[in-house]
Amino acid sequence: MDYKQKFWDSSAEAKEIYIPHLSADAVIFGFEKNELKVLLLKMSYRGQWMLPGGYIRKDENLDDALARILKTRVGVSGIYLEEFAVFGKKNRSEFYFEDFDESLFQKQRFISIGYYALYNSSVITPIPDEFSEVCEWIYLSELPDIELAMDHREIIEKALLALREKIAIKPIGYNLLPEKFTLSELQKLYETILGMSLNRGNFYRKIKNLGILTKLDEQRRGGAHKSPDLYTFNEENYAKALENGLNNW
Amino acid sequence: MDYKQKFWDSSAEAKEIYIPHLSADAVIFGFEKNELKVLLLKMSYRGQWMLPGGYIRKDENLDDALARILKTRVGVSGIYLEEFAVFGKKNRSEFYFEDFDESLFQKQRFISIGYYALYNSSVITPIPDEFSEVCEWIYLSELPDIELAMDHREIIEKALLALREKIAIKPIGYNLLPEKFTLSELQKLYETILGMSLNRGNFYRKIKNLGILTKLDEQRRGGAHKSPDLYTFNEENYAKALENGLNNW
Repeated sequence: MDYKQKFWDSSAEAKEIYIPHLSADAVIFGFEKNELKVLLLKMSYRGQWMLPGGYIRKDENLDDALARILKTRVGVSGIYLEEFAVFGKKNRSEFYFEDFDESLFQKQRFISIGYYALYNSSVITPIPDEFSEVCEWIYLSELPDIELAMDHREIIEKALLALREKIAIKPIGYNLLPEKFTLSELQKLYETILGMSLNRGNFYRKIKNLGILTKLDEQRRGGAHKSPDLYTFNEENYAKALENGLNNW
Repeated sequence: MDYKQKFWDSSAEAKEIYIPHLSADAVIFGFEKNELKVLLLKMSYRGQWMLPGGYIRKDENLDDALARILKTRVGVSGIYLEEFAVFGKKNRSEFYFEDFDESLFQKQRFISIGYYALYNSSVITPIPDEFSEVCEWIYLSELPDIELAMDHREIIEKALLALREKIAIKPIGYNLLPEKFTLSELQKLYETILGMSLNRGNFYRKIKNLGILTKLDEQRRGGAHKSPDLYTFNEENYAKALENGLNNW
């Protein structure tokens, strides 16, 4: 089917059901091979990559809209999203659909609400929607080599900064690491998010002091060195720390 | 002039110039007598208090809209605002203008973007807009006794939580304290925002370690006790800490 016709069909419906000028975009982070990655769609139109995003129905709570958008666009549910910034510059979206005239719903000014989420990428089987060729995890290190639509590169960068601020005050890792992990793997996650090396001794001391870890009676075998201890998150304390934050004062 | 007519006049203009369904609200915090306070307007209509807020022009950057809204509604400019949450539940605004029919611009579903700011209340002379009787600083401790419009109480509470998270990672005080202050006054500010007492020795040590303070060769005179040293913020280091954040790892 002609992709143009597909957009026009969806535009007609969109005008009926969605709030105009307002959209939402989600930056879903995963962690693999000691690297952060982000879930992106490659649009059939123009072939650029973009964040899964969408619009808010006139009769729908904002939270419900986000859940629906992620379900529809990448086939994923049950993700906890954190709102981090609103992107409201003029002309960020107005000219993207350059081959269409302005009666297309998608071709208008959108102020977009940015959300991020952390997700265990091994449990997601991303499913591209009807407007996309593929839906894939892209490593942050690969982003400079791909074309991103509109201001989606800026949205990803801001999401990373927001995540960086967040790990100063909230525990992190539950959705990103496997159930059992070594302290060195956890440190690598923090270093990746912070974009800097951490002193091993300090990190181990601080992270243990949070009380969110349970040391298992198991070691990671197979490495060249001494087998390191495995840990798991203490769910109750982790949840408490999430709610109350880590008091640094 | 009849207040109803005023709303209808403004509604007609609003339909021309503003994006529908989208608003912004600002929680402007001040600090006085060791207490946080917030800048509110008392609407002539229904007599309830509300946050200064408004709409975004179709041809205006979001940032510019916020600056214009604060200028117009409370007569204040040059405030640095931080976006902290979006309020998007159905029916948060739909029924507020109960005496009007639905063709009034103001009587529709608004998804509102929440901002907070810290401001030195001694330099603000709040000016109420044409829809408000008064524009005043209200102490947080007084909020339980006043009526707030729509979900504005929830917006203020969320702003306080966001501010609480922020002081774990950013320096604070520049816009809230007088130029010269004692460590005890600074500690009181932190305690007020955090809603908890802090150990004095720990706090003094941590805050000094940040490198954002300059000790002056002056003391606060007049108290019953030993005259405490006065401090001021080191602007350069403060700005650096604001930009880079306080690394807690």
